[in-house]
Amino acid sequence: MLVVMHATATSADIERVCTAISDMGYQPLPMPGAQRTTVGLVGNDRRVDGSHIEALPGVAEIIYVSSPFKQVSREWRSDNTLVTIAPGVTFGGTDVPVIAGPCSVESEKQILEAARMVRDAGAVALRGGAFKPRSSPYSFQGLGKEGLALLRRAKEETGLAIVTEAMDDEGAQLVAEYADCIQIGARNMQNYSLLKTVGKMRTPVMLKRGMAATVQELLLSAEYILSEGNDQVILCERGVRTWDPSSRNMFDLNAIPAVQKLSHLPIIADPSHGTGVRDRVPPMARAAIAAGADGLLIEVHPDPNRALSDGAQSLFPQQFSDLMRELGSIAGAIGRRISALPAR
Amino acid sequence: MLVVMHATATSADIERVCTAISDMGYQPLPMPGAQRTTVGLVGNDRRVDGSHIEALPGVAEIIYVSSPFKQVSREWRSDNTLVTIAPGVTFGGTDVPVIAGPCSVESEKQILEAARMVRDAGAVALRGGAFKPRSSPYSFQGLGKEGLALLRRAKEETGLAIVTEAMDDEGAQLVAEYADCIQIGARNMQNYSLLKTVGKMRTPVMLKRGMAATVQELLLSAEYILSEGNDQVILCERGVRTWDPSSRNMFDLNAIPAVQKLSHLPIIADPSHGTGVRDRVPPMARAAIAAGADGLLIEVHPDPNRALSDGAQSLFPQQFSDLMRELGSIAGAIGRRISALPAR
Amino acid sequence: MLVVMHATATSADIERVCTAISDMGYQPLPMPGAQRTTVGLVGNDRRVDGSHIEALPGVAEIIYVSSPFKQVSREWRSDNTLVTIAPGVTFGGTDVPVIAGPCSVESEKQILEAARMVRDAGAVALRGGAFKPRSSPYSFQGLGKEGLALLRRAKEETGLAIVTEAMDDEGAQLVAEYADCIQIGARNMQNYSLLKTVGKMRTPVMLKRGMAATVQELLLSAEYILSEGNDQVILCERGVRTWDPSSRNMFDLNAIPAVQKLSHLPIIADPSHGTGVRDRVPPMARAAIAAGADGLLIEVHPDPNRALSDGAQSLFPQQFSDLMRELGSIAGAIGRRISALPAR
Amino acid sequence: MLVVMHATATSADIERVCTAISDMGYQPLPMPGAQRTTVGLVGNDRRVDGSHIEALPGVAEIIYVSSPFKQVSREWRSDNTLVTIAPGVTFGGTDVPVIAGPCSVESEKQILEAARMVRDAGAVALRGGAFKPRSSPYSFQGLGKEGLALLRRAKEETGLAIVTEAMDDEGAQLVAEYADCIQIGARNMQNYSLLKTVGKMRTPVMLKRGMAATVQELLLSAEYILSEGNDQVILCERGVRTWDPSSRNMFDLNAIPAVQKLSHLPIIADPSHGTGVRDRVPPMARAAIAAGADGLLIEVHPDPNRALSDGAQSLFPQQFSDLMRELGSIAGAIGRRISALPAR
Repeated sequence: MLVVMHATATSADIERVCTAISDMGYQPLPMPGAQRTTVGLVGNDRRVDGSHIEALPGVAEIIYVSSPFKQVSREWRSDNTLVTIAPGVTFGGTDVPVIAGPCSVESEKQILEAARMVRDAGAVALRGGAFKPRSSPYSFQGLGKEGLALLRRAKEETGLAIVTEAMDDEGAQLVAEYADCIQIGARNMQNYSLLKTVGKMRTPVMLKRGMAATVQELLLSAEYILSEGNDQVILCERGVRTWDPSSRNMFDLNAIPAVQKLSHLPIIADPSHGTGVRDRVPPMARAAIAAGADGLLIEVHPDPNRALSDGAQSLFPQQFSDLMRELGSIAGAIGRRISALPAR
Repeated sequence: MLVVMHATATSADIERVCTAISDMGYQPLPMPGAQRTTVGLVGNDRRVDGSHIEALPGVAEIIYVSSPFKQVSREWRSDNTLVTIAPGVTFGGTDVPVIAGPCSVESEKQILEAARMVRDAGAVALRGGAFKPRSSPYSFQGLGKEGLALLRRAKEETGLAIVTEAMDDEGAQLVAEYADCIQIGARNMQNYSLLKTVGKMRTPVMLKRGMAATVQELLLSAEYILSEGNDQVILCERGVRTWDPSSRNMFDLNAIPAVQKLSHLPIIADPSHGTGVRDRVPPMARAAIAAGADGLLIEVHPDPNRALSDGAQSLFPQQFSDLMRELGSIAGAIGRRISALPAR
Repeated sequence: MLVVMHATATSADIERVCTAISDMGYQPLPMPGAQRTTVGLVGNDRRVDGSHIEALPGVAEIIYVSSPFKQVSREWRSDNTLVTIAPGVTFGGTDVPVIAGPCSVESEKQILEAARMVRDAGAVALRGGAFKPRSSPYSFQGLGKEGLALLRRAKEETGLAIVTEAMDDEGAQLVAEYADCIQIGARNMQNYSLLKTVGKMRTPVMLKRGMAATVQELLLSAEYILSEGNDQVILCERGVRTWDPSSRNMFDLNAIPAVQKLSHLPIIADPSHGTGVRDRVPPMARAAIAAGADGLLIEVHPDPNRALSDGAQSLFPQQFSDLMRELGSIAGAIGRRISALPAR
Repeated sequence: MLVVMHATATSADIERVCTAISDMGYQPLPMPGAQRTTVGLVGNDRRVDGSHIEALPGVAEIIYVSSPFKQVSREWRSDNTLVTIAPGVTFGGTDVPVIAGPCSVESEKQILEAARMVRDAGAVALRGGAFKPRSSPYSFQGLGKEGLALLRRAKEETGLAIVTEAMDDEGAQLVAEYADCIQIGARNMQNYSLLKTVGKMRTPVMLKRGMAATVQELLLSAEYILSEGNDQVILCERGVRTWDPSSRNMFDLNAIPAVQKLSHLPIIADPSHGTGVRDRVPPMARAAIAAGADGLLIEVHPDPNRALSDGAQSLFPQQFSDLMRELGSIAGAIGRRISALPAR
């Protein structure tokens, strides 16, 4: 922490800041400049709450010099964390798993068809919502526990790992029972009660970035999970709020290398929500792989025209298998490989 | 809903769209233009999910013409809803209640001192967090149930109504037992499980706008609460995400008249979070009243320099009582009045 | 400037940073911490370009501790600058001038009617565009020099000061000839050639904040004008880009106290562009005065339904005179007064 | 244009809207719904200014159904426009030209070294600013005409095409004399006087997206250039304003497919400004190619640690040649090719 004084601060003002820092149990280090003085705080470089110092006379601003997170930081652990949600489905290594499937589980027929199709095209995990967070209370809210049972059937038949969302504590317990990875959605990225709940569990968690969350806030939310003991966390960029009506969201691929520099956790990308428009999913999926994403989450539907939710951003089956071929080439161009399911 | 066709759409394309609308149970109305055709959907003007139509050949875009919310809408109920959280503390009428107090309940001494001070300056309700949503798991998280008990003592002594935050189902039950109004914080604005829980309760709810929530999303979240049966909802503008580092948040006072036009629910403003800087709280509190806010939520601390959270944006006691006098004048200038506690 | 080193930086890394600072002609001051070292730069606290230091091994980040602007800063001049554009029309003092009029000058009849009407309601200056920056090349672009001549006629008849926009060098010379204050629009806030041109002139300048400009960028653009010798600059908040479709812009009233703290220049507010909707202009105009704005810029049209531009955000004459009365009350409540024209 | 009436609108209200549309010379088409009526405007689908209709009693909102631009639209011209700035340097076809070089021209030695180095690594055009738009008037502003002469020398020696920025009319004439393509920077994207000036010239123009410009605004600014007769326009995504301090800008790759769908003009990407950090330039350059960008603009400096501007985002020579090899592989993976200079 650094305390920048005003050009007009008196030596009594500076003294007062030094005393306040000493009172906090740290050592103050004043640095006089030609026009103003800066006071450093030595003996600590984790985050300190300096808000009461900010309010002292003569103080211009407080600057925090160290990162507020700890266990998620690459300074804490330099090697990539590998998150394995099922045999052969590992995030954070050279291989890049693709998770695909419909927005929601709608029926047995639909989810089984979707599962076969995405497996045949090369995906290693199936997505599909049983609990759906919808902006309106009048929209389709998912099949609930019945949807989870259908996902398990799809897994039994196809061998795909299952990734699905939980919206509350009870849901998290159910999802952990039926699926391989618990998804925490963008709207719940700062639902700290839920983060603590999944932190106490041993099932891997996929944490999606909030609608307007900074990279630092995303990492701090992951810190909540790790601080409870669960380090199997996959982060997910899914597009953020934009003022440009030409896109549903702004797909922030800068976040991929940004997170990879700051943290050892894997980060994947969701080009379906990141664009909101079917036609842009293939170019942005390719871009995400080229940017170094550790995995992809893609919406595909056996019949998008009849989807109960997100139809307009779901790929047609044929589009998805064409895309998978392109993704293989792009991954190869940067020395990676799209993950394949182990033989059963 | 309106379906705008491409200039190059064929009559078969238009036919297909009309059939799809008929299949949905509505009546299509094609409107040929000089260069392109638009197809309207008649017989309904609540929100319809047209995403599968968006994907049909020849379709340029879908335009939704009616609002997606219902019970919160002024079209649904034209008179203002009055929300009374305690005798004499009513939001939505001519009188404007001020809720004030520290960010967190820290100790008996601190909260009682704060309560007496804000009551003496003219506030009618006390704020103070017992459960604190903090970005970092290592920050002070609040006193929990003990904090609630301290708030009740402050109420007994001063007669102030109590407003405090709940972060999960269990917390909501506790808050309802001890307080007069349950606050749902910005980070939980789209925590639909929690919204449904408080929707089933009969305690008034104050719903804060999310970090990057649109006015429409705020109203849809309120709709979740009303749709479960609880219509005692107060909305709160508290600043939204900004790209300008000169402010912690951008305080969106446009939202006050915007909400008042669309909805019958009262909307208050929180200039403390809306600015993040003590010096800007008084001008922005005045601005909020001048803009027509139905109440204010202000952070005041007996000793901000020693606050455990949000010290830099908390007013000093003297600043707060000066501000209350100014607010009285501003309210008077637009024909309103700052609420006063009834004689006990 | 402060250079924060990585936790893993070696002493050779730190040495290298110190040498680089010495090479730049300043004195390095290393501050060892428990986990990392920070290196300060002493003997200067104006902005230094440290980008090549950022790239040295072991460097985590660079932090700049001093403001990049100079002549516009309140540290440079502590008293408010008063900008007088015509006798009795002064910005930056206790009195608050209101500038009003149509978006564009459309005809002699229209501008004279508008001028009489806003003067009768209490405005002291007339706005009206002769050169219009329109997003589309096919929209009405203004009457040009003929419009300026009509504005001069309106001034002769009513005594109102004239404020109108210039979009290029040639236009600036013309505006200076005909008007009392040259407006630089939001789209040209960083058109540095134009800023230098008006900086060399002696006519007062009103500089509008760009669509997504930070407060610091606004002040740096003003610095361009002052650095050429013209210190008669009025800043203007006019709403910034928003992701919320419920408003045309987000009206950032926080910028009023923020600018007043950092700079001695007056800052006014434009609630017409700040909201984009007629119904919200009165509440937001009141809010701006309550927040401490040093003036207002309001669109009023004798017949908004027939306006060639911005009709939907222009007030009706009656609305404007009602609003002026309310503004007088609000100004009075905070010890200020709406400016009045001197007797002719 | 569509006029949506309130649920409570009377038939007189609807009549009045129909009359207003007739008065404008178009044919009104009322569409009654179960709860409200919508009135369409037939016989035109270019943009109409409906703001005075918006203000009529009973009107809820106006919806514009057709795009406001014309000559830049793919509806106007379905084939890609090819922009050739020099022999073998064509944007908009299968081959993807890379423009590279330093932020500013600093000296003869620096620019010649840079030119040789980027040509040897495979670039086909040289960038380098002679006129620099800097936020602060006290930053290095470029060598001006002398810088242009140095760029011409670099071209003579290496055969590279030259792309450099102009900030005003006079600068545009000079740049056209010395260079192959005039760059209009982000800050001048809505400097309509300058757009008209380059629209009257015959030199190709590269138009960078403004700091917070929507895709539609970018296309409308291009329309200004085309409407004056110059259709040799290359668009450029260079990152937009973000609220996330982890990046200098948010690099909006969604804009690539979005522009390509709406317009026939080529669009390139600038990952140097799009990220602001050297380490992120390679992954984001790869991502841009994978997303379908028609070219790249990359900052490279012979010695970034001594650059006068943008040092922290400039690549080292070795990084750039490594990157060019990777870009070749990525382009190949999607059936494109990085452009090569023709033999001299």
